[in-house]
Amino acid sequence: MSRIGVLLSGCGVNDGSEIHEAVLTMLALDQAGAERFCLAPDMAQRDVVDHLAGKPVAESRNVLVEAARIARGEIRSLESVSASEIDGIILPGGFGAAKNLSDFAVAGINAEVNSGVEKLLLDLRAADKPIGAICIAPVVLARVFGHLGPEVTIGSDPAVARTLESFGARHIECPVDDIVVDERLRLVTTPAYMLGPGLKEIWLGIDKLVRRVVALAG
Amino acid sequence: MSRIGVLLSGCGVNDGSEIHEAVLTMLALDQAGAERFCLAPDMAQRDVVDHLAGKPVAESRNVLVEAARIARGEIRSLESVSASEIDGIILPGGFGAAKNLSDFAVAGINAEVNSGVEKLLLDLRAADKPIGAICIAPVVLARVFGHLGPEVTIGSDPAVARTLESFGARHIECPVDDIVVDERLRLVTTPAYMLGPGLKEIWLGIDKLVRRVVALAG
Repeated sequence: MSRIGVLLSGCGVNDGSEIHEAVLTMLALDQAGAERFCLAPDMAQRDVVDHLAGKPVAESRNVLVEAARIARGEIRSLESVSASEIDGIILPGGFGAAKNLSDFAVAGINAEVNSGVEKLLLDLRAADKPIGAICIAPVVLARVFGHLGPEVTIGSDPAVARTLESFGARHIECPVDDIVVDERLRLVTTPAYMLGPGLKEIWLGIDKLVRRVVALAG
Repeated sequence: MSRIGVLLSGCGVNDGSEIHEAVLTMLALDQAGAERFCLAPDMAQRDVVDHLAGKPVAESRNVLVEAARIARGEIRSLESVSASEIDGIILPGGFGAAKNLSDFAVAGINAEVNSGVEKLLLDLRAADKPIGAICIAPVVLARVFGHLGPEVTIGSDPAVARTLESFGARHIECPVDDIVVDERLRLVTTPAYMLGPGLKEIWLGIDKLVRRVVALAG
């Protein structure tokens, strides 16, 4: 049984992991016969957003502690996990990928990736283990692997696509129910809520992505 | 297209809605061609639990504001919703059903249900609209409809089953991949994480429950 990491970035689309994408990733892993291994960086969130009002609030929350809500407490700190413990990894989307795993949401083309996240992804690549990324999370892959010319998708948003290309990635347009696979670098991406429109559509792309990552990890 | 309420109680298994059960309910509604209508009471949570440490912390959060994370901001306050606006309702599980929608977690056989929740459920019943409840949430139905002798399941936990019966309900044992239907009162229940063991098993029961509620609402 493959053990696949699910790298979370909080709990909520506007300041952490997109909850639907994270849960559908876990459902697909379970159905594919893979073991899920949740992890998240042990760090303060960049911000806390009131998801009812849609506005930041003066509060402080920890990425790992909030991500533990999605993981039902079964989660490890990213900093304690070595690439040898997992057979592959998947990054669900949500602004947490652009605020906590990286600073893309504020830095744009000057974005940097959290050093622990970058190290784990480089170590997984060095071991030729597959990496999946959903929705906006492919920006993290584009930034970390830009020097290798990775092929990824975030759907069809021209501004984000241009930024990915500025990192050295090649952006491939892709519909919500499909995936882009970089066979050479073993990267799998799907647009999910970058395109929407709802759960039944993003499920098709996420299920395909998970099955491909599990197959590559096999 | 039926419009089905999803009554949330926060965001996280230990102090709010169980996130997996809530998201799978929404996926099944979307696949069944129903419109989801998320709602939650606008009130302080009974407590806030650190899901990493598994312990309560000295913090205050609002049920509606946290539930908005699962609903991606598309949510209404329970108090503003009339039974005439929806064709049925589903209550996912999580301790929020026993801490916020009711006080079952602390009061046991003396549990009371939040007055707004009780009114909405009684109004839906009076209009003969279907009501679904998942995991521990059937305790709310047992308490509100105990005088009518409802048939419900929470799986096979003997202590909880006895409490349900003390409310006037009849408890029916049920496996995780199945549902109990009270045809007379149009109540549908499934054990989900009261039995576990994982996402692929609870999905089977939740999908059946949602399809039955949508069919009854049709």
